[in-house]
Amino acid sequence: MRCEIVAVGTELLLGQIVDTNSSWMGERLALAGIDSHFQVKVGDNRARIVDTIRHALSRSDAVLLCGGLGPTQDDITREAIAEVMGVALIRDDAMGEKIRRGFEARGRRFTENNLRQADRPAGASFIPEMPGTAPGLVCPVGERGSTSGRGPANEQVIYAVPGVPFEMREMMEGTILPDLRRRAGVAAVIRSRVLKSWGESESRLAELLAGRIEALDRIGNPTIAFQASGIEGLKIRITAKAQDAAAAEALIAGEEAKVRAIVGDAIFATDEQTMESVVLDLLRGRGLSLAVAESLTGGLVGARLTAVPGASDVFRGAVVSYASEVKFDLLGLPEGPVVSTDAAKAMALGVRERLGADVGIATTGVAGPAEQEGQPLGTVFLGLAHRDRVEALRVRLPGDRRRVREYAVISVLNLLRLRISGSSRSPELR
Amino acid sequence: MRCEIVAVGTELLLGQIVDTNSSWMGERLALAGIDSHFQVKVGDNRARIVDTIRHALSRSDAVLLCGGLGPTQDDITREAIAEVMGVALIRDDAMGEKIRRGFEARGRRFTENNLRQADRPAGASFIPEMPGTAPGLVCPVGERGSTSGRGPANEQVIYAVPGVPFEMREMMEGTILPDLRRRAGVAAVIRSRVLKSWGESESRLAELLAGRIEALDRIGNPTIAFQASGIEGLKIRITAKAQDAAAAEALIAGEEAKVRAIVGDAIFATDEQTMESVVLDLLRGRGLSLAVAESLTGGLVGARLTAVPGASDVFRGAVVSYASEVKFDLLGLPEGPVVSTDAAKAMALGVRERLGADVGIATTGVAGPAEQEGQPLGTVFLGLAHRDRVEALRVRLPGDRRRVREYAVISVLNLLRLRISGSSRSPELR
Repeated sequence: MRCEIVAVGTELLLGQIVDTNSSWMGERLALAGIDSHFQVKVGDNRARIVDTIRHALSRSDAVLLCGGLGPTQDDITREAIAEVMGVALIRDDAMGEKIRRGFEARGRRFTENNLRQADRPAGASFIPEMPGTAPGLVCPVGERGSTSGRGPANEQVIYAVPGVPFEMREMMEGTILPDLRRRAGVAAVIRSRVLKSWGESESRLAELLAGRIEALDRIGNPTIAFQASGIEGLKIRITAKAQDAAAAEALIAGEEAKVRAIVGDAIFATDEQTMESVVLDLLRGRGLSLAVAESLTGGLVGARLTAVPGASDVFRGAVVSYASEVKFDLLGLPEGPVVSTDAAKAMALGVRERLGADVGIATTGVAGPAEQEGQPLGTVFLGLAHRDRVEALRVRLPGDRRRVREYAVISVLNLLRLRISGSSRSPELR
Repeated sequence: MRCEIVAVGTELLLGQIVDTNSSWMGERLALAGIDSHFQVKVGDNRARIVDTIRHALSRSDAVLLCGGLGPTQDDITREAIAEVMGVALIRDDAMGEKIRRGFEARGRRFTENNLRQADRPAGASFIPEMPGTAPGLVCPVGERGSTSGRGPANEQVIYAVPGVPFEMREMMEGTILPDLRRRAGVAAVIRSRVLKSWGESESRLAELLAGRIEALDRIGNPTIAFQASGIEGLKIRITAKAQDAAAAEALIAGEEAKVRAIVGDAIFATDEQTMESVVLDLLRGRGLSLAVAESLTGGLVGARLTAVPGASDVFRGAVVSYASEVKFDLLGLPEGPVVSTDAAKAMALGVRERLGADVGIATTGVAGPAEQEGQPLGTVFLGLAHRDRVEALRVRLPGDRRRVREYAVISVLNLLRLRISGSSRSPELR
C-alpha cells in the first residue's frame, strides 16, 4: 500500500510556511506500515494540482491532500479533486447548516463564502471528525488498471484534509489511518516507543548503545534510532514489527529494559510524556506543591507546567521577577547582584514562602543579547528549595536568547526531577 | 524560468527530519524572480530519484537537488544524475585531494568512502563554494525540446547541493541563484510584505478586501493573499514585481495604504513584528511600564513578552496566581469567585500595585479540561488597569486547552494595544 502526500498552498512553495504537516503524516504512515515514496508541494493552481493528483495516482494507491479546503477563492482542492474524478461538485446542505452552526457556537460571523466548504465531489463523503469549520473528504476514485493489486479491493482513494495541524491530525487518526490500514489489509503491526533523554550528547548515547545497535543490526527487529530534538532533549526510538500489537509491544518492552539499564535516568519520559508532566506526576505522588520564581525565563516555566491538564493539583503559581526591584520587594532578595548562586537560592526560598508551597525552584541568568553583571550570555543559575535544603546550580547554556531560555526551563525542571526522585545522578549542588 | 526543488532522503519521508531546506530555497527563488511550481521529497532510492528528476525536467527549466551527496552507500544523488544525463561518473582526483586535505584540516579521520564525494557526472562541474566536505554540482543537461524558450540558451540544468543547511545556503547564494538569474535573463525583482491582523475572520477579511482583490486580479501586480496563522492571527501578504527593488517597494507601499484604509487597526504588525513587540514598542514610546497577572495563561503572557530582546525596559514582571489563595494573598483579591469580571479587574489592579507598574493586565478563565465556577471551557476574562480606569472584557475563545490559552494571550495583548493607542476599535469594556 502506497500513499503519496500532496501539500497544497503557494505559501508552502514560497517558504512562507514550513510544511511540517507532511512530515507528521509521513511519520504516522510509516508507523501504520504504509509506504510513502513521494511527497509533493504544489501551489494554489488548479491545473497543477490536477496534474499532481493524476501523477500520484499513476504510482500510488492513495493520495493524501493537505490544504486548500478553506472558504476563499484560493482554496481549490475540492474543485481539483472533482476534475480528477470527472464528477461535479455538490453543495451539501446538511454540512452547510453544520458549518453555520459552528460559526454561531464560536460567536464568529458567518458569511456566504463559508458555504463553499460544504461542497463535495459527487461520490465523496465527509470525514466525520471536524474539529474546525472545514470538513475533510474521502473520495473513492474507482478501480485502477493493471499496475496494482496491493489493496483488497484494488480501489484507489483520495483524501483531503485542512492544513490547520490539529484539524488534520484528528482526521488522520480518526479516519484516514484506520481506512488505509483496512484497505492495505496488512496483518503486520508496527509499534514504536520513544524514550526521551536529557543530559547526554548524541555521540555519547551512540557510544553507550553501540553494542545494542550492533546486536539489533544483525537481527533487524526491533530497531533503535536517535533523534535530536533540541530543547526537548534527545529521543531514542525503538521500533518493532510483529504479527499483532501484543507481540510488537513485548519486543519493545524487552528492548526498552535493556536500553534503560544502559542509559539510566538520563531517560526522563516516554512517548507523550514531557519533562513537565513527569515532574508534576512526581510531585503529586509525594503530595508536594510547587512555586516558581523566574527571571530570564520570563514565565516559560509556569507556562510549560500549566500546559499539562491537572497542573493545579501541584502548581501554586509563579513570580516572574523580571525587574530587579520585583526580586527585592516581592521575593525578599537582599539588594545586590541578581545573577548569582545566592540570588537563585533566595528566589527559590522566597517564592516558596510567599506562595506557601512545599518546593520552590528559580531561574536567573543571562539570555542576552548583552551580558549582565559581567556574566556572559548563557550563564544561568538554577535554584531549588526543598525541605531544609536550599541549593543552586550554575550552568552554561549554548545558543541564542530563545535557546538559552528554553534550555534553562528544561534544566531547572530536570534538576527538580532528579532531586525529588532521589537520583544518584543528581548533580552536585552548592 | 522555472526551477523545481527535489529534496532527497528517506528520513524526510519518514518525518524524522522536517524539510526546512526546501522552504528556504523556495523563498530565495521567489525573491530572485524564479518560479518554483513543484517541490518534491523522494527517498534514497535510485530509480525513484531518476524518475523524479526526469519528471521535473519535463516541466521545469532547472532542477535543484538537495541531499544525498554524502560519502555513504545511501548517498546516490550523483549516480542518479549521471543516469539521467546518460553519462558516466568520473572520479576527480583534484577534488579527492581537496576533500582529503579538508578532513586533515578539521582533524577528522579520512576514509576511502569519502572519495565518493569526488565523483562527478561527465560534463558536470563542481560548485566553487564548499564550506563542508561535500562538493555541490552544476550539471548541464543540454537543449530541451520544443516546450521551452524561456532561458536565453534554452538549456536545462541540474544543481545538486548537500542537505546540511549552511553548506546548501552558501552554494545557493554564491553560485546557484546568480546562475539561475543569468540563465533567466530577467531583471525583475520580487518583494513582499506581510500585514498581520487580529479580530476579523478570514472570510470577513476576504469580503472587506474583495474589491481590491478583484481590481488586482485584473492588473496582476501587486497581488494580495491571505494566510491563516492560528494564534498569530491572519496574515495579509502583498507581493509586487518590478524592474528594481525601489519600484517593487513603491508598489507595495501604495497597496499597503489601500489595505490599511479598508481593514483599519485590526492590522497590528508588519513582517517581523509580533503582537508582543508592537505592544512593548507602544508602551516604551509612552514611557509606561507593565505588570501582568496570569491565571489560566500560567506564564505565557510573560514568556511571550520576554521573548523580545529589550523587554526589560517596559516589562516589570508577572504574578502567576494559579491557586486561588495566591490571588487572595499576593494580589489582594477579595475571597470569592476567581473567574469573573471583578476578579480580572482586581488582578490587573493588584499586580500593577504590587509590582509598581503604570499598567496592569490580567487573564483569568477556563482552559479546561473541566468547567470552573459554572463557566464553560473557553470563557475568559481579560483585565486592564491603566491610569484611573480599571476595566474587564469577557470573551469566549474556541478550541482546546492549548488554543484557549494562546488566544487568551494574544487577546489580552491586543486589548492593551488598542487601549494604549487610543483606537476607536477598542472593545466596549465593563
